[in-house]
Amino acid sequence: MQKNYQQKTLGILGGGQLGRMVIQSAINYNIDIHILDPDANAPCKSICQKFIHGKLTDFDTVYNFGQECDIITIEIENVNTDALEKLASEGKEVYPQPSLIRLIQDKRVQKQFYQEKGIPTAEFILTENKDEVMLNAAFLPAVNKLGKEGYDGRGVQVLKNADDLEKAFDAPGLLEKLIDFDKEISVIVAKNKRGEVIAYPSVECAFHPTANLVEFLFAPAEISPEIEAKAQEIALKVIHELDLVGILAVEMFVTKEGNILVNEIAPRPHNSGHHTIEANMISQFEQHLRAVLDMPLGNTELRTPAAMVNLLGEDGFVGEAYVEGLDEAMAQKGVYVHLYGKKLTKPFRKMGHVTILDNDIETLKKRAMEIKSLIKIKA
Amino acid sequence: MQKNYQQKTLGILGGGQLGRMVIQSAINYNIDIHILDPDANAPCKSICQKFIHGKLTDFDTVYNFGQECDIITIEIENVNTDALEKLASEGKEVYPQPSLIRLIQDKRVQKQFYQEKGIPTAEFILTENKDEVMLNAAFLPAVNKLGKEGYDGRGVQVLKNADDLEKAFDAPGLLEKLIDFDKEISVIVAKNKRGEVIAYPSVECAFHPTANLVEFLFAPAEISPEIEAKAQEIALKVIHELDLVGILAVEMFVTKEGNILVNEIAPRPHNSGHHTIEANMISQFEQHLRAVLDMPLGNTELRTPAAMVNLLGEDGFVGEAYVEGLDEAMAQKGVYVHLYGKKLTKPFRKMGHVTILDNDIETLKKRAMEIKSLIKIKA
Repeated sequence: MQKNYQQKTLGILGGGQLGRMVIQSAINYNIDIHILDPDANAPCKSICQKFIHGKLTDFDTVYNFGQECDIITIEIENVNTDALEKLASEGKEVYPQPSLIRLIQDKRVQKQFYQEKGIPTAEFILTENKDEVMLNAAFLPAVNKLGKEGYDGRGVQVLKNADDLEKAFDAPGLLEKLIDFDKEISVIVAKNKRGEVIAYPSVECAFHPTANLVEFLFAPAEISPEIEAKAQEIALKVIHELDLVGILAVEMFVTKEGNILVNEIAPRPHNSGHHTIEANMISQFEQHLRAVLDMPLGNTELRTPAAMVNLLGEDGFVGEAYVEGLDEAMAQKGVYVHLYGKKLTKPFRKMGHVTILDNDIETLKKRAMEIKSLIKIKA
Repeated sequence: MQKNYQQKTLGILGGGQLGRMVIQSAINYNIDIHILDPDANAPCKSICQKFIHGKLTDFDTVYNFGQECDIITIEIENVNTDALEKLASEGKEVYPQPSLIRLIQDKRVQKQFYQEKGIPTAEFILTENKDEVMLNAAFLPAVNKLGKEGYDGRGVQVLKNADDLEKAFDAPGLLEKLIDFDKEISVIVAKNKRGEVIAYPSVECAFHPTANLVEFLFAPAEISPEIEAKAQEIALKVIHELDLVGILAVEMFVTKEGNILVNEIAPRPHNSGHHTIEANMISQFEQHLRAVLDMPLGNTELRTPAAMVNLLGEDGFVGEAYVEGLDEAMAQKGVYVHLYGKKLTKPFRKMGHVTILDNDIETLKKRAMEIKSLIKIKA
């Protein structure tokens, strides 16, 4: 008798908000979820079937955790891939594959992979240390990226001119041409074991008019059908060339000439896909489950245009979180607040997100900015 | 400082699938959920913050359970209302109000309430025992309903003619005129403490052509705008006259003359609202939370026509459940399977449901019947 999904245990390395939203979908399929996280109060803790408090980068911790699971996946890249490889060699299903997590963990390996496979990306030079960066001053303006252990914006340093050179990282990394892009978009793709692939419609970043800050994300992206088709094709090429099983977010630049360059990729649910819960036929979180559990992949169509605003801890506030403006926001048609189960707030901590649905794109963008000023996470 | 939702504990009497789907929504608001249920393996057990194994009808059990909660609600009617009343008198917020749960628990009190408040309902006679039913043979064809402790179809006996009289209940109940209805519909309404009310678009039962069996539910109901307006008005009148805080499902008959008669009501999320998760702007489960926690109520518009098929344990199968046809169903665009976390199946046990979204109503109905024959819960 076929072992049905509900008889399987899925282990997730990482118990943050991404895992939390995966669990909300997993509940529909009777899938038991085990979580490993170094934070004893991780967002997934109180809603999973088993919570292990431990380090994701520790071999023994990850190996022992995986022993009790049938399938293992991640919601964060910084995990011990050696332990995952051992688990895979012993018959556990690990998706995405450990070798691919390792490839993605190292931006230098990542960029060389794009180059080898003919995937368009910004021109780059590998650099071993700060001295080598300084030797390549002529390459500026550029972005200095750390090879390993950079995340959430850390390990990324913009070097506009020679005056910035002293900010360069003194560690293996790369210098990537600074792209004067027209737009920044993201396409989320997925592949399951049986080889089915899907792609989500592009999402676009709405930038502050002058500061290099993303205010919110929205879908559909305001790009021509030709560029959308190109973006989809490139994102699918990436997952195909990687032969990755799981979900993959592919962040891309659209240049002023209409070319597309791959910027970053993440082999897990991604911030650029949060809107899919209410806006698309199947959410990225459910899609992640379907991909790693070898269930048929789901339809990705956008049902209604959507915008997504991150709720970050307000600067200057540390302590027990309080959501200002929640009542007023919830009363609005098409507003969906998601809080991540984190009791304590601190400046810029990801405390939740808000998705807005609206059939009119201009109204949608206006409402996204209004929600942004309405909802504040304070203490 | 205002006590935000995430600092409150909501206790739910009953830990079945209704509570499970409420929890899926509660996760978005950081609400801690405590569950009381007599089944040690209740569907909510592994996803709530605290699970108490105990009888819902026991005074001390319910009272002690409520002590640890700020707000208490129900997902099943058969609970100890005396304990709830004591909790309410001691400052706990109990919604729906215990007196209303008591009123609804007793079908005799319920019917008299409709009569007093001018809410249209089928003509009825109160009967104290089987003898009294038999004395009223001239009233047939009628439905003999038990006053208390009837649920899920039990405590309801159709008496078509004198030959059926011996099947009458020998307990306090009522005889209700058997209505040769044209349609059976349901409207779910909700009210919060601050007095906001909302109503969902009508849902219609699709009957087997000859047997008196509901095959699936679908929305929007195929009724004229006038009848829809009337149904909404009556459902809102019921919750208004009750002055109930919480959610209320109002099941109604539409007669061949186009009149509407209230059949049954349930002060909790209801089977006729399961489709709202994917089909409406805000689901009945989130609405239930909003109502009892005095959050602003949410928009109820239907985004896409939908059908809902219950997944009942297949007759002749008892044991560890297996879902036949799941893979094939999940691959279809617009199909959403919800399994209830019940490991063991037995004939007709509610093991899950499937919602289908489709813009074409005829296709929708066809797909609902196909899904019905495709997915089987066996052991």
